[in-house]
Amino acid sequence: MSHDRCLYSNMVALSPVLVLTYLSYFHSAVLSFPLDQQSHDTSSCGYKSCHATVPNMLNVHLVPHTHDDVGWLKTVDQYFYGGRNDIQHAGVQYILDSVVGQLLQNPERRFIYVETAFFYRWWKNQPPSMQKAVRQLVDQGRLEFVNGGWCMSDEATTHYSAVIDQMTLGLRFLNDTFGPCGRPRVAWHIDPFGHAREHASMFAQMGYDGFFFGRLDYQDRTNRIRTLEQELLWRASESLEPPYADLFTGILPNGYNPPKGFCWDQSCDDAPIMDDPDLEDYNVDDVVQRFAAAANSQAMAYKTKHIIMTMGSDFQYENANLWYKNLDKLIRYVNTRQANGSQINVLYSTPSCYLQELHRANLTWTLKTDDFFPYADDAHNFWTGYFTSRPALKRYERVSNGRLQTCNQLEVLGGPSSRKGPFGAGDSETLREAMAVAQHHDAVSGTEKQHVANDYARRLANGWQHCQVVVSNSLAALSGSSAGRIYCDNLNVSACPLTEASKKFSVNVYNSLARPVVWPVRLPVNASAYTVLDATGTPVDCQVVPMSEATQQVRKDRGYAVNELVFQAQAPPLGYSTYSVSVLQNGPPSASVKSGPPAAIQNKFVRATFDPATGLLDSLTNLETQQTIRLTQNFYWYNASDGKSSISDQASGAYIFRPNSSSPFIISCTAETESIQTPELQEVRQQFGPWVSQVIRLHSNSKALEMEWTVGPVPIADGLGKEVITRLDSSIASSGVFYTDSNGREVLRRKKDFRPTWDLRQTEPVAGNYYPINSRAYIKDDKDQLTVVTDRSQGGSSIHDGSLEIMLHRRLLHDDWRGVGEPLNEMSGVFPLGLVVRGRLLLSLTPPALAADAHRPLAQENVLQPLLSFTEGGPPPGSLLEFSGLQAALPPAVHLLTLSQWGQDSLLIRLEHQFQTKESKEHSVPFTVNLQKLFSTLKVVGVSELNLSANQWIDEMKRLDWRPKMAAKPLRKPLGDPSMWEVILTPMQIRTFILRVAPRR
Amino acid sequence: MSHDRCLYSNMVALSPVLVLTYLSYFHSAVLSFPLDQQSHDTSSCGYKSCHATVPNMLNVHLVPHTHDDVGWLKTVDQYFYGGRNDIQHAGVQYILDSVVGQLLQNPERRFIYVETAFFYRWWKNQPPSMQKAVRQLVDQGRLEFVNGGWCMSDEATTHYSAVIDQMTLGLRFLNDTFGPCGRPRVAWHIDPFGHAREHASMFAQMGYDGFFFGRLDYQDRTNRIRTLEQELLWRASESLEPPYADLFTGILPNGYNPPKGFCWDQSCDDAPIMDDPDLEDYNVDDVVQRFAAAANSQAMAYKTKHIIMTMGSDFQYENANLWYKNLDKLIRYVNTRQANGSQINVLYSTPSCYLQELHRANLTWTLKTDDFFPYADDAHNFWTGYFTSRPALKRYERVSNGRLQTCNQLEVLGGPSSRKGPFGAGDSETLREAMAVAQHHDAVSGTEKQHVANDYARRLANGWQHCQVVVSNSLAALSGSSAGRIYCDNLNVSACPLTEASKKFSVNVYNSLARPVVWPVRLPVNASAYTVLDATGTPVDCQVVPMSEATQQVRKDRGYAVNELVFQAQAPPLGYSTYSVSVLQNGPPSASVKSGPPAAIQNKFVRATFDPATGLLDSLTNLETQQTIRLTQNFYWYNASDGKSSISDQASGAYIFRPNSSSPFIISCTAETESIQTPELQEVRQQFGPWVSQVIRLHSNSKALEMEWTVGPVPIADGLGKEVITRLDSSIASSGVFYTDSNGREVLRRKKDFRPTWDLRQTEPVAGNYYPINSRAYIKDDKDQLTVVTDRSQGGSSIHDGSLEIMLHRRLLHDDWRGVGEPLNEMSGVFPLGLVVRGRLLLSLTPPALAADAHRPLAQENVLQPLLSFTEGGPPPGSLLEFSGLQAALPPAVHLLTLSQWGQDSLLIRLEHQFQTKESKEHSVPFTVNLQKLFSTLKVVGVSELNLSANQWIDEMKRLDWRPKMAAKPLRKPLGDPSMWEVILTPMQIRTFILRVAPRR
Repeated sequence: MSHDRCLYSNMVALSPVLVLTYLSYFHSAVLSFPLDQQSHDTSSCGYKSCHATVPNMLNVHLVPHTHDDVGWLKTVDQYFYGGRNDIQHAGVQYILDSVVGQLLQNPERRFIYVETAFFYRWWKNQPPSMQKAVRQLVDQGRLEFVNGGWCMSDEATTHYSAVIDQMTLGLRFLNDTFGPCGRPRVAWHIDPFGHAREHASMFAQMGYDGFFFGRLDYQDRTNRIRTLEQELLWRASESLEPPYADLFTGILPNGYNPPKGFCWDQSCDDAPIMDDPDLEDYNVDDVVQRFAAAANSQAMAYKTKHIIMTMGSDFQYENANLWYKNLDKLIRYVNTRQANGSQINVLYSTPSCYLQELHRANLTWTLKTDDFFPYADDAHNFWTGYFTSRPALKRYERVSNGRLQTCNQLEVLGGPSSRKGPFGAGDSETLREAMAVAQHHDAVSGTEKQHVANDYARRLANGWQHCQVVVSNSLAALSGSSAGRIYCDNLNVSACPLTEASKKFSVNVYNSLARPVVWPVRLPVNASAYTVLDATGTPVDCQVVPMSEATQQVRKDRGYAVNELVFQAQAPPLGYSTYSVSVLQNGPPSASVKSGPPAAIQNKFVRATFDPATGLLDSLTNLETQQTIRLTQNFYWYNASDGKSSISDQASGAYIFRPNSSSPFIISCTAETESIQTPELQEVRQQFGPWVSQVIRLHSNSKALEMEWTVGPVPIADGLGKEVITRLDSSIASSGVFYTDSNGREVLRRKKDFRPTWDLRQTEPVAGNYYPINSRAYIKDDKDQLTVVTDRSQGGSSIHDGSLEIMLHRRLLHDDWRGVGEPLNEMSGVFPLGLVVRGRLLLSLTPPALAADAHRPLAQENVLQPLLSFTEGGPPPGSLLEFSGLQAALPPAVHLLTLSQWGQDSLLIRLEHQFQTKESKEHSVPFTVNLQKLFSTLKVVGVSELNLSANQWIDEMKRLDWRPKMAAKPLRKPLGDPSMWEVILTPMQIRTFILRVAPRR
Repeated sequence: MSHDRCLYSNMVALSPVLVLTYLSYFHSAVLSFPLDQQSHDTSSCGYKSCHATVPNMLNVHLVPHTHDDVGWLKTVDQYFYGGRNDIQHAGVQYILDSVVGQLLQNPERRFIYVETAFFYRWWKNQPPSMQKAVRQLVDQGRLEFVNGGWCMSDEATTHYSAVIDQMTLGLRFLNDTFGPCGRPRVAWHIDPFGHAREHASMFAQMGYDGFFFGRLDYQDRTNRIRTLEQELLWRASESLEPPYADLFTGILPNGYNPPKGFCWDQSCDDAPIMDDPDLEDYNVDDVVQRFAAAANSQAMAYKTKHIIMTMGSDFQYENANLWYKNLDKLIRYVNTRQANGSQINVLYSTPSCYLQELHRANLTWTLKTDDFFPYADDAHNFWTGYFTSRPALKRYERVSNGRLQTCNQLEVLGGPSSRKGPFGAGDSETLREAMAVAQHHDAVSGTEKQHVANDYARRLANGWQHCQVVVSNSLAALSGSSAGRIYCDNLNVSACPLTEASKKFSVNVYNSLARPVVWPVRLPVNASAYTVLDATGTPVDCQVVPMSEATQQVRKDRGYAVNELVFQAQAPPLGYSTYSVSVLQNGPPSASVKSGPPAAIQNKFVRATFDPATGLLDSLTNLETQQTIRLTQNFYWYNASDGKSSISDQASGAYIFRPNSSSPFIISCTAETESIQTPELQEVRQQFGPWVSQVIRLHSNSKALEMEWTVGPVPIADGLGKEVITRLDSSIASSGVFYTDSNGREVLRRKKDFRPTWDLRQTEPVAGNYYPINSRAYIKDDKDQLTVVTDRSQGGSSIHDGSLEIMLHRRLLHDDWRGVGEPLNEMSGVFPLGLVVRGRLLLSLTPPALAADAHRPLAQENVLQPLLSFTEGGPPPGSLLEFSGLQAALPPAVHLLTLSQWGQDSLLIRLEHQFQTKESKEHSVPFTVNLQKLFSTLKVVGVSELNLSANQWIDEMKRLDWRPKMAAKPLRKPLGDPSMWEVILTPMQIRTFILRVAPRR
């Protein structure tokens, strides 16, 4: 089949590019692969390797599989080795050992493998003879990869940027190692707890022919079983032309488990097939009969003469012999009955073989355009708590994504010396892998054990250590100075030893966006006045303010500054600008702190007023559009169910949000306030009690109102678990409707107590209305739209008209019985009394038609914040103080999603149109980018376009076509690019290229 | 090596014999084997296959092994298949699958397998390709069989006859299947709970070079660790000339488990070796260091530069990859350290390879002549309860052994039509296998779960069904009558539908002893007078007595007779005699029952007097020797500990006997009595309350006083577990000494609160003095010896001088935490309120010098009781009413232990001298048996002698020689046989032969 042609064969101009690897451990595989083209025989893998089925019989596709969490109760490495089996018996090294051995014994057998993070660990420990045997299994379709990302990502709390990266990482390993036969045909998210539309859209753009998952709302499932709609066509984008974001989607019959009574793993207790008539307990007849009953019952809920049975589960197949020996017998004994008139045919299969049969059925399928959130497995069991669980880890993951993009970009811009330079040897792989692992559905989701959460964080920190070397080397190459460079990772709590102690230092502000940025720099200092010069030596406005009590408390002994220096830094696209800071005088800062709330804070764009009686926010005005809403804000906590209610024994836990009552408790009706008002900075500092404080802030240039909240340690001495929210109550007539984004991209409409595809029986008035917010949420009416941009994934809802609430922090005293086995009660590290979390919300008030113009760039700025690095003393003479990697800023609608090294002289880039269709008059239109005019220091000498996951040439990506029940719009051809180098981007489109580059002279 | 020569090669006269198999399922293997001699390459198995060791280093022999109970928490078939894994995760089919696969991957690896009951089940399901691969592994010593019996027999509750049979069964399978390389060199009883001297004697005579076990008294172990005597030479017989019963014996260091921290089975949680430095938790240095510490510490407790580590445990290696992958790494990393000066060398090994190194050390070893009973694992934890646990199963096993011997004999005597004849197709294999399974150390021991005990009983019953056909066919062939034949299995509770209903019937009394027997026949009947004619038509004395109330109660609705017909039957050696019974009159029986105790009951040999006040036994007199002792007897119960004491939380359970107090509670100080006194029969019927009764009985010809006890249902309404004993208190001055037999053969001296090899600190004054009684126990002084012959294995002791107590029944309310997980509380079947058990003790009072003359034949008669079968109506005209398979009775000292079919025209026989040296003036001397003059209907045309287990020619059995510390007596050559056909038997000798036979014309 044409789409099985070698990924590398048509890249004539670029053929050497893919030969070279960017990851040292892929060397041998990648280097050998193109030389050894014949070994990847694609004639018998993929759909062609499927076993024959029997027409007119019920064909039961048995899919042997294992579900290997990339961390959960144990760390990813513990899972790989089978360490800490006292926590959970699981050892992936043995699973792969065992499965391969069993596959080799019988060519009929099939297995699918999913998580490349594990497969890669295993592969690199195998001798060449074993690698050869496995290649053969893959070439013959006996071992098939599905999904194939580094992990099976979470869908509710991940950002699309990191998901695309982790999929690219895993799929590249498979491509490099196995060629076309290693390319997964099917996306496979059997465990994630709800399903995001943006994930479906990405999977479609990655070339998957279909998608299977296991978990959905119990009411939704009941309904779909009744209507035979467990298999459907998901139209996953409102912006992309069908079928580009159409994804055939199947809901698996038993989650991802085998039917009851047919689990033959070592971890199961079901009776084996006992077929020696000389021994006791001969049970072949019984097994065959029970199997027929299970198959026929399952067939009632699906449309075709084919059904799928997932024969496996968590970390199963460690001793694959148990499974295969019994499956072999099952197939033999069930099919033998056909001679006696049985109409059941059982076969070893894979999800793609099953999918192929569904496709051959040539039916039409219901079209779905919303998503599968929230997920409830019963009336009082909504998995909406994990939208917020472990807020510090969620923020750290988001920050690390920005750091990885910066690291990737600087690795490219700095050239080869980035990896090995004056600061030693660095790499981006460590952080790339750490980020990929962190996308797992029990990682950033916050649903892992504490020690595993610590491990994810440790990996990210370690990855960043490796990246710091790359960044330092690169900046040294670009600036011409190898002066020592310091990174301050605790600036969010205003700690930075260098700025605190130094009388003169310089600040490098690196901006990873493809357009210039203005960013408020805020540094801990001890002097009272400073001079700040920009890269041209021009002084910039700055302000020293006393450090708040709240910040000093949360900072603890990580710093000792008493003041903060604030100034607005500008940085060019994909580049840096260097500021010089020197002490002007000591003594108390000029900006005085006034007790009590001010009437208002404002700059030229925004005004926020305060209630003098309560100290709370009172209204918000957009001074440009002259619109004002009433807006109050306060903090509350839901009392977490402890599982002792008579209605349900469900407690709130890492997964589940279940408030004991629909009314949250207010933390304080009033805030103790003080304020600072200078031309540079206006802020109101609010204290709501010993464990909640907030700063409401306006910088001189900001169009959004910043609310920096600090929550914790959440008190539990009263024995009550608490789920803390911030709630905005406005005069907007939202009519029960609110909007949340999907994985940081397209926005979905939400309506209280409503689901688009079935009549909801609402049983949890709060938890049942929570949705994931990855980067933004809003409410609106005809006139006003209030948009909140978040700095991490959080859960939120609009329970009352005009209201928007966001859950910030959770501290719980009970496990919620979904396996993690711990209450979510974070106390480790520097917070032995309970974790303190700080974050920022950015509020934007606009007319609805202009909202996207504000929140799209605002959110990207928030995701890809500038990286600050510090050098003691002034900038070295002769060093380059400002640099941009681009010839010019890209249009505001165009985001440079990816820029990273691919091969020795090739890059991977992704250009993204970051506006949805119709949401902006100005920006929701096609834009053209000229690739040759992109970079300032690199010449683009070759280009080839890939699918989103960079594992297939775009023109070879021929997906199975599926027909929706409703008449589809005729497919419009995408706009043809004006030339090889000029590419057009339409709303929400992401285009992926490999560029061959050379340095400009 | 010469002893590896083919078993078959020197049997010139008999060569076709062994070619033919007696078990149909061995056909292919046995038939093919001699034709394919070359395939069994013995040049690289056995000791020659051992890996090299390093002189002067500490050599650590890693022995991968699995311990597979032939039934315990699950039935043997459930264990084989891995059924009921909810009870215990264990599936032997997968263990063997997995181990073989792993052995094939790496020729360095070794494995030992032990239980042929499982291996046989697995083998017969393997395709020829797999069988071939396994043969190669065996030929190369990579897979080595140790022990190799059908099971690993219990040592405290088994009878030597059944143990020899089960060993023969297992070892024959190995011999037939694998030839010399399949012959185990080492006996391996790693789990049994104490060790019998007779077992050691048998193992020596079976040709084992050494013996390893895991459990011994904790004080004994401490002592042996201190004195470096965990390896020793066991001289296991007082009668056999050394070294015939000498057995090198090693006590394993960790039971049979790996050292702490090194269990890499799927069932363990120890950290795997994590040797990828790129991953977290790299632990190679830690593992190597911990291993060196474990090895060095273990080496302190043994004498040589070699230590053994048992790398495995219960049902381990189901996923052998886990073990081997980590062991491979362990060996590699530990030995790599030798380059840095480490003095530790690790290797894959087997018990025989370890044994070989001990032998090469050429040391002298402490000599041990007692046994390893009782076993205590701590101060209050004596494993002496299982000596009695499940008394009904223990009896059923003993009865079944007799039935199997009868079946074996009649299969031979009846010729080919025994297996297929007028009553259909029968076989002895089913019962042989059932008996073999029942010897397992959690079978007849009574330490299995109730459902498993039921399974053992069911197997025995099923085996007997198969044997009944053999017996009926054989008796039809021998008698010339195919008249229908009925077996009454409930005669012990006087139930037999035929005799109860019939007016005329005949009784066939088959005697499996090699000498004539007189046996009291006791049949349930409803008429009041009968005529009984012997085989010559001569009337014999008989007596009808009313059936006791106690018997009617325990019989329940299994019969409806009101009387019992009693007469003394005589039967010829290895033959039968037929009696005809017909009703003479109805009405009440002539023998009247008198209320109250008689002054005495007596016959011409024995008198027993009774206390008129209590109804209890008062004295016993041997009328021949004119000796009298005071003798009282009563029933008591120990209050079983419930584990709630402050001293220890140990409760009595299936394994452990722990009375709450050393004084048992009396059941009743007096017995309600009635008596029957006729010339034929004198009996006193005693009732001690609702749940204990007894009949003290003398038949006219018996020299022993019979005490038939009936106990149960043991009441538990008071919440107390009860361990019921019968206690004989006599005037014998026993001085704390008593005697018990070992597995039904040689007798050991026991002394209260004393152990022969160390200074005992006695912590359990009753339980710590209990010993197994398999067939007899006695106390004595200079003048009197009181011997009690039991009908099953029981525990017993002499706590007070002149006293002998035997535990009869146990009903317990707590588990004893040794794994079985159930209280021993038998309630199933026809006894829903609690099991009722009935049994017999036979008391013999003699001078000590004459005691053996009485108890040796008495015990054999009790073990091999005649088999009664019944035919409606009189004997068919012309049928042969009396038959003997022997030309003449063997001398009283000679017991025909085995007579069974071996090949199509060959027999296996064992001749046993059943007296110990010096115990009888008359019988403890050599006897000669002429094999050609043995059988009346078979001509012996060839003979070849084998070792005891019939898996090696006696002249090829060359065992490793071991030197005891004390000077050994010079080896006396055994008496040379006078001729090829005349064989000499010396005291306690058993000689094993294969005879080629032909029918006499």
